[in-house]
Amino acid sequence: MSILLRQSRSIRAIGTPFSSLSRGYATEAKVRFFPDEPSKPIMKYDQLPGAKTVVLATSLAALTDSYLMIDRLDYSNSIGNYLQDADGNKFLDVFAQIASIAIGYNHPELLALARSDEFVQLAMNRPALGGFPPSNWNDIISNGLLKVAPPGLDQLFTMMCGSCANEGALKAAFFAYRQRERGSQLAEFTSEELKSCMNNHTPGSPDLVAMSFRSGFHGRLFGSLSLTRSKAIHKVDVPAFDWPAVEFPQLRYPLAEFEAENKKIEAASLQGVEETILEWKKKGRSVAALIVEPIQSEGGDYHASPAFFRALRALTLKHDVYLIVDEVQTGVGATGHFWAHEAWNLETPPDFVTFSKKMQAAGFYHTMETRPSQPYRNYNTWMGAPTEILKARTIIDVIERENLLHHVKDVGAYLYGGLETLSKSVGQNKIVNLRGKDSGTFLAFDSATPKMRDDFVNKMKLAGVNMGGCGDKTVRLRPMLVFEKPHADIVLETAEKVLKDL
Amino acid sequence: MSILLRQSRSIRAIGTPFSSLSRGYATEAKVRFFPDEPSKPIMKYDQLPGAKTVVLATSLAALTDSYLMIDRLDYSNSIGNYLQDADGNKFLDVFAQIASIAIGYNHPELLALARSDEFVQLAMNRPALGGFPPSNWNDIISNGLLKVAPPGLDQLFTMMCGSCANEGALKAAFFAYRQRERGSQLAEFTSEELKSCMNNHTPGSPDLVAMSFRSGFHGRLFGSLSLTRSKAIHKVDVPAFDWPAVEFPQLRYPLAEFEAENKKIEAASLQGVEETILEWKKKGRSVAALIVEPIQSEGGDYHASPAFFRALRALTLKHDVYLIVDEVQTGVGATGHFWAHEAWNLETPPDFVTFSKKMQAAGFYHTMETRPSQPYRNYNTWMGAPTEILKARTIIDVIERENLLHHVKDVGAYLYGGLETLSKSVGQNKIVNLRGKDSGTFLAFDSATPKMRDDFVNKMKLAGVNMGGCGDKTVRLRPMLVFEKPHADIVLETAEKVLKDL
Repeated sequence: MSILLRQSRSIRAIGTPFSSLSRGYATEAKVRFFPDEPSKPIMKYDQLPGAKTVVLATSLAALTDSYLMIDRLDYSNSIGNYLQDADGNKFLDVFAQIASIAIGYNHPELLALARSDEFVQLAMNRPALGGFPPSNWNDIISNGLLKVAPPGLDQLFTMMCGSCANEGALKAAFFAYRQRERGSQLAEFTSEELKSCMNNHTPGSPDLVAMSFRSGFHGRLFGSLSLTRSKAIHKVDVPAFDWPAVEFPQLRYPLAEFEAENKKIEAASLQGVEETILEWKKKGRSVAALIVEPIQSEGGDYHASPAFFRALRALTLKHDVYLIVDEVQTGVGATGHFWAHEAWNLETPPDFVTFSKKMQAAGFYHTMETRPSQPYRNYNTWMGAPTEILKARTIIDVIERENLLHHVKDVGAYLYGGLETLSKSVGQNKIVNLRGKDSGTFLAFDSATPKMRDDFVNKMKLAGVNMGGCGDKTVRLRPMLVFEKPHADIVLETAEKVLKDL
Repeated sequence: MSILLRQSRSIRAIGTPFSSLSRGYATEAKVRFFPDEPSKPIMKYDQLPGAKTVVLATSLAALTDSYLMIDRLDYSNSIGNYLQDADGNKFLDVFAQIASIAIGYNHPELLALARSDEFVQLAMNRPALGGFPPSNWNDIISNGLLKVAPPGLDQLFTMMCGSCANEGALKAAFFAYRQRERGSQLAEFTSEELKSCMNNHTPGSPDLVAMSFRSGFHGRLFGSLSLTRSKAIHKVDVPAFDWPAVEFPQLRYPLAEFEAENKKIEAASLQGVEETILEWKKKGRSVAALIVEPIQSEGGDYHASPAFFRALRALTLKHDVYLIVDEVQTGVGATGHFWAHEAWNLETPPDFVTFSKKMQAAGFYHTMETRPSQPYRNYNTWMGAPTEILKARTIIDVIERENLLHHVKDVGAYLYGGLETLSKSVGQNKIVNLRGKDSGTFLAFDSATPKMRDDFVNKMKLAGVNMGGCGDKTVRLRPMLVFEKPHADIVLETAEKVLKDL
């Protein structure tokens, strides 16, 4: 009998209501959003990937980079927080397509949208939105993406993906920076600029730089990858811009316990930011933009305090650096704010806020100041996907109507509390640096080693909970906004069993 | 009475069947693909943009970069080759969302696809395709994108847009180039490489370069924009990689008439390519990849001969340079081949062929040699849009079943012949350098000046034919694959009137 088969015995028991176990985190409350969901994960076979998944994955290996694809999913039989695979296993999904599902699988309002004439028309007559938007485009964005524009930012530019969104914002920042240097939006380019840029040389292709934080992740295209500093495997062998990176505060958790120490760590990071800005300016290569995630996500779920971000904003204003807040992973509600940066209480809004993932649509918000001086400077054929922009409108509607931000805060506190309790009961070094106390369900903790983290994630999956890691040894929780306390109980109960055996 | 109003009188006459005019290009044949299309453009008002469009455009100006958006379209009332705007004008559309509509507006099979459960499921439960593809993914790509894989290329990597596709292929080329330098797919990265790439420095971020042709267009993200050499306004103020560009042959048209001369021009370009490769190698910055469009499209519709491209392929093989053929605009049938580069009769296929636009889906084809050595090197959350990949399957089906490649060749020859005749009758310098004789409906000609080109395009639109320009003074025709001879007659008849008045 294989190890996997032996493991499966305990797997089958995971349906036991958590309330019947020793700690009893919750009552057997019914879920509210998707009453037809399974009440617990259902694992039909003893190992993963299952037989059908293996067959499908093997045949695909001949066609495309199959390293990446080990699961095969049955979306028609997925519902709410539950994801079904080709073998009929039903997972409670707290990874959610890499943090990209907002309101659950097969949400009835999204399905209704898909069947609407409006959706069908735009899906099948795909407009080049920059030149030929549909006649009701104003309504679509006013009742959707612009309804949730971050405070102080009233301009919208739509693009296709998170990397594109970050690069689009960065281009706009470079345009605006050079415009400001010229002294006017109306200033003309010199003939030398127009000529030299065709050779990718200065002054037309300026020596300006963009700055990012170590362990940050901002995408994988050539500009965004130059900003990304998460893992070498993402970057090695790809030519990169010689742009500076600075240390992100590596705080101690729980934050409240180490406040004084963390303040010093944050001060050191801020000092690094300012020194780097000055140092590169001296080199003749000014920093035009700084990009930052409200919580560094792919890189390891690193947090910093609102005070840190307020000081960062002040620094960027002081040195005429545009601030791009990358909310691709943190945006759209999972932190209990619609935008994670709303928790900072900034006096002056950031210059750009980028989005993608749970929004389905991608792009960035900004102000009139950073609107390009001429047409066709930021542009491309599609300028975003109209289908995804329609989906965003529905998702935003549901978040508002169901008051999901409040819900996420509530469930997040519950899940955090459960993990905190668990961290004390399962033994040393199994749940380390638990973090996200004030970040809704955007929670994470470290394992003692990378291997232990991988084992944990794999065993959780075998036990019916689909999870993801980030950084080297971090477990990240990225449930959907419709994740409820009974789901949290299943996560906690399963984690308890898996951790005890680890 | 305004000039525009006066112009409108002749506009209203454009419905006269061309066969009743002097030259009589065609019979009053019925169209085959969309029998319910209007038989001619219908212009309801005397000027463009119409009143409703102006109101909608003005209100949008407060929200987003409105320079770009002058039209407002009514997609529900568009059909086949006809695009209706918010004011009820019905244009014959030979621009087709910047060359991105393949089989016509509101094609019944696409509408049926949109209403299918398969489409609805994948539209509303958007998978992160790299990790969680649907269980029938093998079938979807085998019966779709892979059915039209260019000869010799059997690997597929899907992405979100044309710029992304080019950058993904370029990343894969850099990976493969470094692997070949290391001598094995299994060779490990050195610790120095892994460390230095986190600082964007060599050797981990290599000094390798990618080469492109002057007046080429490959996109607008930071890597693809560094390859783009079409217009300064696309590039100015954006930092760029110091990568080389070489002259694209500037041939004389018609090609057959200037064969000997053009051969010399092409030989000079090829010499430039080889010299540049050697020169940059000497500098220690080897050219890892060369990207080329089969017909330079945005840059001005410049052609080169199959012999040129065969020699180019031989050069890239000789110098170990990966060849990326950018078929974002030329692919999917408009040249009468599914892929324009099929006309070259290459002995060795290109290393990469990229696609987007009319395919709706984007990505690139390649070989096993250039599959990355490890997972997560080329990767992102969505790895393409499943809705667009489903649409590609339908579009490919329709192209095959309706034999649209043959149809495009036939109509293209007819339209080319009509333009050739017209060029002789309308007076000097109005249709110059007519080109695309063997390129299906992928046709273009120059005006005498940029202003004359703009006037022509604007007046064609006022007369009910939606067209586009490219380069400085070029008119490009980019009809859909369902463009028929009666449509060609309307274009020719309208052009004749507009050109005579110009």
